[in-house]
Amino acid sequence: MTQDAYREMWETLNLDLAAHDGLLAVLGKFYGDIYMSQQGRLKGMEYLDFVLSEVHGLRIKELMDAKAQGRKIVGTFCVFVPEELTLAVDAVQVGLCAGADAGREAAETLVPRNTCALIKSFIGFKLARLCPYTESCDLIVGETTCDGKKKAYEAFAAHAPLYVMEVPQTKSDAARVLWKAEILRYMARLEDLTGTKITAEKLAEAIKTVNARRRALQRLNRLRAAVPAPISGRDVLLINQVSFYDDPARFTASINTLCDQLEERIKAEEGVAPADAPRLMLSGCPMAVPNWKLPYIIESSGAVIVGEESCIGTRNTRDLVDESAQTLDEMLDALVDRYLRIDCACFTPNQERLDNIETMARDLKADGVIQYALMFCQPYAHEAIKVEKRLGAADIPSMALETDYSMEDVEQLKTRVEAFLETLK
Amino acid sequence: MTQDAYREMWETLNLDLAAHDGLLAVLGKFYGDIYMSQQGRLKGMEYLDFVLSEVHGLRIKELMDAKAQGRKIVGTFCVFVPEELTLAVDAVQVGLCAGADAGREAAETLVPRNTCALIKSFIGFKLARLCPYTESCDLIVGETTCDGKKKAYEAFAAHAPLYVMEVPQTKSDAARVLWKAEILRYMARLEDLTGTKITAEKLAEAIKTVNARRRALQRLNRLRAAVPAPISGRDVLLINQVSFYDDPARFTASINTLCDQLEERIKAEEGVAPADAPRLMLSGCPMAVPNWKLPYIIESSGAVIVGEESCIGTRNTRDLVDESAQTLDEMLDALVDRYLRIDCACFTPNQERLDNIETMARDLKADGVIQYALMFCQPYAHEAIKVEKRLGAADIPSMALETDYSMEDVEQLKTRVEAFLETLK
Repeated sequence: MTQDAYREMWETLNLDLAAHDGLLAVLGKFYGDIYMSQQGRLKGMEYLDFVLSEVHGLRIKELMDAKAQGRKIVGTFCVFVPEELTLAVDAVQVGLCAGADAGREAAETLVPRNTCALIKSFIGFKLARLCPYTESCDLIVGETTCDGKKKAYEAFAAHAPLYVMEVPQTKSDAARVLWKAEILRYMARLEDLTGTKITAEKLAEAIKTVNARRRALQRLNRLRAAVPAPISGRDVLLINQVSFYDDPARFTASINTLCDQLEERIKAEEGVAPADAPRLMLSGCPMAVPNWKLPYIIESSGAVIVGEESCIGTRNTRDLVDESAQTLDEMLDALVDRYLRIDCACFTPNQERLDNIETMARDLKADGVIQYALMFCQPYAHEAIKVEKRLGAADIPSMALETDYSMEDVEQLKTRVEAFLETLK
Repeated sequence: MTQDAYREMWETLNLDLAAHDGLLAVLGKFYGDIYMSQQGRLKGMEYLDFVLSEVHGLRIKELMDAKAQGRKIVGTFCVFVPEELTLAVDAVQVGLCAGADAGREAAETLVPRNTCALIKSFIGFKLARLCPYTESCDLIVGETTCDGKKKAYEAFAAHAPLYVMEVPQTKSDAARVLWKAEILRYMARLEDLTGTKITAEKLAEAIKTVNARRRALQRLNRLRAAVPAPISGRDVLLINQVSFYDDPARFTASINTLCDQLEERIKAEEGVAPADAPRLMLSGCPMAVPNWKLPYIIESSGAVIVGEESCIGTRNTRDLVDESAQTLDEMLDALVDRYLRIDCACFTPNQERLDNIETMARDLKADGVIQYALMFCQPYAHEAIKVEKRLGAADIPSMALETDYSMEDVEQLKTRVEAFLETLK
């Protein structure tokens, strides 16, 4: 498609075209600096480069085509929204823009200034009319995973077709009953939206599709245990980010092809960094496109990132839905159980996360862990204290950083990362 | 009892005696400045002055005596913990210290610095061994009403006999099922703690006791609609604070006596402030003893506070438990329903609160509303934006303030309050 055709599409979506041009220019420059400057990238990353270059173009065109065929678009901000149900009504699920500083002043009329950058961003993108995903949505599904989002959705609801799922705060039997009721309510809402009834056959297929994507990403993550590290953390973060936007089947095939190449590279004992480069794991808040600031700082300081313990990372891919269920109700129970295994900081207690972080750091042979929190994210800030203690007891060095989407603290973060890397020598 | 006997009691409770002496001295001075300096106080306030003067003395002695008789002490930080159940097992329920800056540095090793003052305070009081209530407790009951408390309790649990209730985040049918399960689980926990089985008879009596206290406080609040205002906001805040500590029946009788005196005063058209003094309502976060900073600033600026829309205020007293229930299960359902009517900012949506604030401001003939939020309290900071819009639409002036427990911002708050009062003229 031509740029003119894209502009027409964006105009139809009521984007602020001039501001959107500016955003794409910054994104392109940023991507060039952070991604295209890398040496020794795998051939398979060309697919990701292409997808990202067309993130507001071809992928939006696909959504528009889907809509023209009568399919619905469902937008989300959280790994608790079960994509299996969305796919089972033949709708498309996409993550929405939340990773860049956009429309902040307008957002601060709806939410307090002391709100995390991710929340301000999704509201800002909407108010500034800069996200073609948000504008394409027939339904946007929020959840009650933190005070910030829970209350922000109330304000957001005046501006978007919002639906909120109540995620429980414990994993008790009673909490599971609530969560199952919420899964059923969401299913009914999707059936109502699309006029499509969810059958066992459709749901089984959707479960297989999403599990296949998770398996491909699990495979990718396992391969990163190799020394030297065969792929950069930046590239894997991008892959995780794209997993929220791209067509699931196409994406899964591309990642499996990439993994084949990774296996070749590992066999040849080749890497993207020297074998003795410090191996770091990231842990904490999600990094939405184009929030690549910290990974870039880390990897341009000579370290390599070998894991992302994050919603845009292993929290979204670690657990599969049990595929042995036969009836629709059994499948729904399998969904309920799978999503309740998520080790989100919204749960109390959340001991599993500590266990998972330590296991992951060991499996990936991480020399240290950088805990990343968005400023004003209370759940992850609280858990950072516990994670630090746990890693300390396991003799795994760690450091906790708080930041937002501004570039003002880049030098400060760089200094802290370099000081941390010094301690690992 | 003598001071020596008290010291012995505090020592038994393992308080840090020297630091506790310091705390009591500051509290006494603060109380003298803020409370005893008032003109024209009602005779009935002597009871409150006495209770407050003995807050770490006689009342703690009573708790010790209750314990000696085999009764259990249950501590809480939240109006969601159903005192009816606690009383039905013949236990004593008390609010715990959370209103002063104590043990902050120690608290900041367990929770992030960007945590609200109330949370840091209850942790600090425990770590610094300064709260005889906390030290008396056989059980401390937390709840999941905000991210800050939910996650702080995880750290607090290593230091206290903690039990956490899951409060749902919506008022859906499924959320009500969860809440009922939590009420039943708490009931079983209390029965286990005390060895006392809750019967319909005991619960009916407890419901009457707590309702009677609510009715007395409702009566008090209604009388404040009189012009001139017959009682200061400081005094009513104190009354609300003491309602969490004192013996319920004795407290209720004292408040009803005070209300008799208030009625006399109103008949005589007497007040604590001139009839044309600006009448303000406070709205937002709770003010625990001895957090009297903002009310003192407001009332020493010439205004009078006529209502507290707060957990330590009308949020705790507005709704009664239906007394028509006959069976134990009906009574439990009545409890479930009453507590789910609370208009806490933890719920989404929480439209009732906006309605209640506007109604309350009109009923009390408030000239304006001051929204009070503790710094880093996200739920009330989010709602403050909505409350401001709602009051604006109703032509009721309002101002939002954020503060903590330090005295550093007193002058700044005073300036803002005075500027707000100017706009009301």
